[in-house]
Amino acid sequence: MLKPGTRLVTLLILTAAPPVAAQDPLASWNDTGPKKTILEFVGKVTKSGSADFVAPAERIATFDNDGCLWAEQPMYFQLAFALDRVKVLAPQHPEWKTQEPYKSLLAGDLKAVLAGGEKSLVEIVMATHAGITTEEFATVVQEWTKTARHPKTGHAYTEMVYQPMLELLAFLRRNGFKTFIVSGGGVEFMRAWAEGVYGIPPEQVVGSAIVTKLEMRPTGPVLLREPKMDFVDDGPGKPVGINSRIGRRPILAFGNSDGDLQMLQWTAAGAGERFMGIVHHTDAAREWAYDRTSHVGKLDKALDEATARGWTVVDMKADWTRVFPFTR
Amino acid sequence: MLKPGTRLVTLLILTAAPPVAAQDPLASWNDTGPKKTILEFVGKVTKSGSADFVAPAERIATFDNDGCLWAEQPMYFQLAFALDRVKVLAPQHPEWKTQEPYKSLLAGDLKAVLAGGEKSLVEIVMATHAGITTEEFATVVQEWTKTARHPKTGHAYTEMVYQPMLELLAFLRRNGFKTFIVSGGGVEFMRAWAEGVYGIPPEQVVGSAIVTKLEMRPTGPVLLREPKMDFVDDGPGKPVGINSRIGRRPILAFGNSDGDLQMLQWTAAGAGERFMGIVHHTDAAREWAYDRTSHVGKLDKALDEATARGWTVVDMKADWTRVFPFTR
Repeated sequence: MLKPGTRLVTLLILTAAPPVAAQDPLASWNDTGPKKTILEFVGKVTKSGSADFVAPAERIATFDNDGCLWAEQPMYFQLAFALDRVKVLAPQHPEWKTQEPYKSLLAGDLKAVLAGGEKSLVEIVMATHAGITTEEFATVVQEWTKTARHPKTGHAYTEMVYQPMLELLAFLRRNGFKTFIVSGGGVEFMRAWAEGVYGIPPEQVVGSAIVTKLEMRPTGPVLLREPKMDFVDDGPGKPVGINSRIGRRPILAFGNSDGDLQMLQWTAAGAGERFMGIVHHTDAAREWAYDRTSHVGKLDKALDEATARGWTVVDMKADWTRVFPFTR
Repeated sequence: MLKPGTRLVTLLILTAAPPVAAQDPLASWNDTGPKKTILEFVGKVTKSGSADFVAPAERIATFDNDGCLWAEQPMYFQLAFALDRVKVLAPQHPEWKTQEPYKSLLAGDLKAVLAGGEKSLVEIVMATHAGITTEEFATVVQEWTKTARHPKTGHAYTEMVYQPMLELLAFLRRNGFKTFIVSGGGVEFMRAWAEGVYGIPPEQVVGSAIVTKLEMRPTGPVLLREPKMDFVDDGPGKPVGINSRIGRRPILAFGNSDGDLQMLQWTAAGAGERFMGIVHHTDAAREWAYDRTSHVGKLDKALDEATARGWTVVDMKADWTRVFPFTR
């Protein structure tokens, strides 16, 4: 039997604890357009019995990585990894002392390296990403994420992730979405840390890849990374990668550059409710401001198409109360 | 307050309902070695706090499809699909009347088609699997699974799945495993029906693939299937596919032929508790009996290695009480 007065006590307890719904799932987003659009979209597709309802199995959300989940200035972080790796490997390659682009790189002349264009960069990536097993490569990447520091912030690269996007990933997963990375970055580079940083398991990371080859060694089978591209997950490659690796069309996609345009178009072309989002880097004070003329993360055609088609463009400066977890 | 006698009523109810644990999760498996090994393995890796415990995220299980989850005689079912499709497409290809291997095929002379070897088969597969969009192909496959019937049993091909393996898939999933198909079969062919038949979603199906290309049409973007191989998920390709698509090493793998040997070796080479299984087709009465000399699903080297290394070999005749869902 309840004693008299119990009801009052219960009411007091209920009043003291804030209702769960009052906790803002997107606390680092201002109450501006993008946040409202996201909340409305998720509300619609998860409302059982509504015309817009989407079964959990179909709630596929795909995110670009560079410039969308983590920063990408002053250069793609994977390129920073490759450059650091050249220095580590230099003692094993005495020929690099006289051979470009290594000579310039080891002399600290990054400008000369970049002047060599894509050819130089591809050569550096192959020299630093291939020739070892998949397990060795994962270890190398993990070690790098622990020690390397971003030149501007002094933080680990894996800390330079966008707090509002971490909240969005978690919010979507709590609402039955399966969150995927679909990025031009290397798939094995990202998998080495994506689960710890984003809560996205390896099997939900789609990225560019080099060829791997099975080799039987006395100690057992290994997969050797070869210096040859297998798949470029960028631009028109993104719908191809989504189809070949995921096999379902996303109902939500987020990108930030022209390399994401086809992924956004592919997502938009499906039936039913859709969400297409673009992170627009507008915040020179807290991060960087760049778009149409940037060499990294160029956003031009996709920005025009977003405007024309009413996709959600996140103005980082206006729409995010916080950028990185470590600072406002 | 409970009334006197309540406790007795509660006990009666508990006695009347069988305890959940008493329901056999592998009811179509005899209480022979393989079943015991499976139950012991799953018990070990899911026992929290034990030395063999494996976190749910790492509980990756991979299954071959042809001859492991569904039957594969008298020919791979996907080849039956391709042959049926030649007949459907023949009116659009008048040249096939005089052109091999189509001429023989349309005349019903399968022997002459098969005499053409791999070259003929690849040509037939390309002619029947490419030239349409990914969505059109999925529809074509789904229509075929509804209407086509197996020449021996008269059942739909998608009914010729192994009941014991369906139970195993469900049992593993209830124990926190993520179940994947890793098959030499076409990934888009399998995805068209794998979720309905096995409960395995598209993003957990790894298979062979042809090239797809993004094409912008006035009605929107499509992915066009091109007559060119992109990836062969067989033999040494299986560890490559597991690594590129899943990105984690399985702790359990099941196959039935030499094409699965490298997947089993790759699985065995990981640290901690492992389960490697082979379905051995020993039952000429309920299914088919074949192994070392079969043209379909040849099991020779993998059978020797299984014996040498103590992997689990399922003797279909002795170890399964039921083969297909529709019959014992």
